[in-house]
Amino acid sequence: MIYELFYWPTIQGRGEFIRLALAEADAKYIDVARLSENKKTGVTAMIKLLENDSLENSPFAPPILKFGNQLISQTANILMFLGERHRLAPTREKGRMWTHTIQLTINDFLVEVHDVHHPLAKSLYYEEQKEEAIRRASNFRSERLPKFLGYMENILSRELSSKPYLVGKRTTYADLSLFQIIEGLRYAFPKLMSEKEKNYPRVIYLHNRISKRPRIDKYLKSDQRIAFNQHGIFRHYEELDL
Amino acid sequence: MIYELFYWPTIQGRGEFIRLALAEADAKYIDVARLSENKKTGVTAMIKLLENDSLENSPFAPPILKFGNQLISQTANILMFLGERHRLAPTREKGRMWTHTIQLTINDFLVEVHDVHHPLAKSLYYEEQKEEAIRRASNFRSERLPKFLGYMENILSRELSSKPYLVGKRTTYADLSLFQIIEGLRYAFPKLMSEKEKNYPRVIYLHNRISKRPRIDKYLKSDQRIAFNQHGIFRHYEELDL
Repeated sequence: MIYELFYWPTIQGRGEFIRLALAEADAKYIDVARLSENKKTGVTAMIKLLENDSLENSPFAPPILKFGNQLISQTANILMFLGERHRLAPTREKGRMWTHTIQLTINDFLVEVHDVHHPLAKSLYYEEQKEEAIRRASNFRSERLPKFLGYMENILSRELSSKPYLVGKRTTYADLSLFQIIEGLRYAFPKLMSEKEKNYPRVIYLHNRISKRPRIDKYLKSDQRIAFNQHGIFRHYEELDL
Repeated sequence: MIYELFYWPTIQGRGEFIRLALAEADAKYIDVARLSENKKTGVTAMIKLLENDSLENSPFAPPILKFGNQLISQTANILMFLGERHRLAPTREKGRMWTHTIQLTINDFLVEVHDVHHPLAKSLYYEEQKEEAIRRASNFRSERLPKFLGYMENILSRELSSKPYLVGKRTTYADLSLFQIIEGLRYAFPKLMSEKEKNYPRVIYLHNRISKRPRIDKYLKSDQRIAFNQHGIFRHYEELDL
């Protein structure tokens, strides 16, 4: 059985966390909304799925993973599901839960990253909330980003290995997600990151190692990887950077 | 073994979702930060725990549940853990994951509820972001609250029972959490809710039934239940309500 992923076709967004896990798992999947418009593919098919209120386990929002008849939504939940099936998380409860905890923290941070450029409403344009975004960005740069990256650095510093992962001795989906966060932050806040990265050497080293994993490397160089752009969660606005 | 809950002692906040689950489970626990200052209790003990970077599975923020040597954090994660142990979620994977998915959606909504009064930064006072809050509240009232409550109403409308729960035929922690959301919204947005509630009859009926469950009823009437106040996630500001 192959997976079907439903996510917006022109941005990385939350879908990218799932794509990275599927790539590392070498799992077969269809990226439904990126295929040509058809009864079962294309954006229309995804919107139809989203608007179908009669579905069991109906999703609130993409990304959605379809596996047979099962619809799975909420990024962290999908990753937990994939992690179990593709050895991208420990099998024992404690390690499995800890991986999920880290992922939930990454997700919380992602909401904050988004809200830096959209502090008032998702449905308003950036230009309509630019002044507010500038104020929110200042707090994000000075407090929120250091708190989050410091937390991740600290988790890595507790590991005894010289090549630490967030959880145990193997790559988990949490490592892939932290990799993606660094990718996104470098796109959105290049000046800030060039100044701050030195404070988080283990995080940056992990990012570097993840980028070189054969399947990830191959994925990143493929057409499957959508380039960062000004419609996603990570957006670059000069005035929000340092 | 009894649980230890670590959460801020003067607000309901995210800790309340855990307290409700513990109450319904009739589980024994210590509400650590609400006990008098001591080596192992009081707010100082909680802050010490939060600042101890050397702990395995160190939490990013409260609530934190300690169970023996195990530290569990992130609200939805704690609830998943408790749900499994106290029959507050289905035991089969599909139902268990669906309960968690609903909880994650509730958590996302909770962030939005908080950010209505703090759109720019947690570390600024409300008065420093009041104008922005007024703009964000308008979008919250017209778009976000209806989208969220409509989604929950829809889940309930798919259940065949005349007394539906969110998942299956028994109370889950997701029902308790939705109960708490309605409680909070009524405190924060009394005018808005008195106008909107009629659109979500199944949600309101579920809230009503949960409030009458013997253990919940007893908990709500006890000293354990902290009153809503202007320091929590749900805050009432006249200008943000209708």
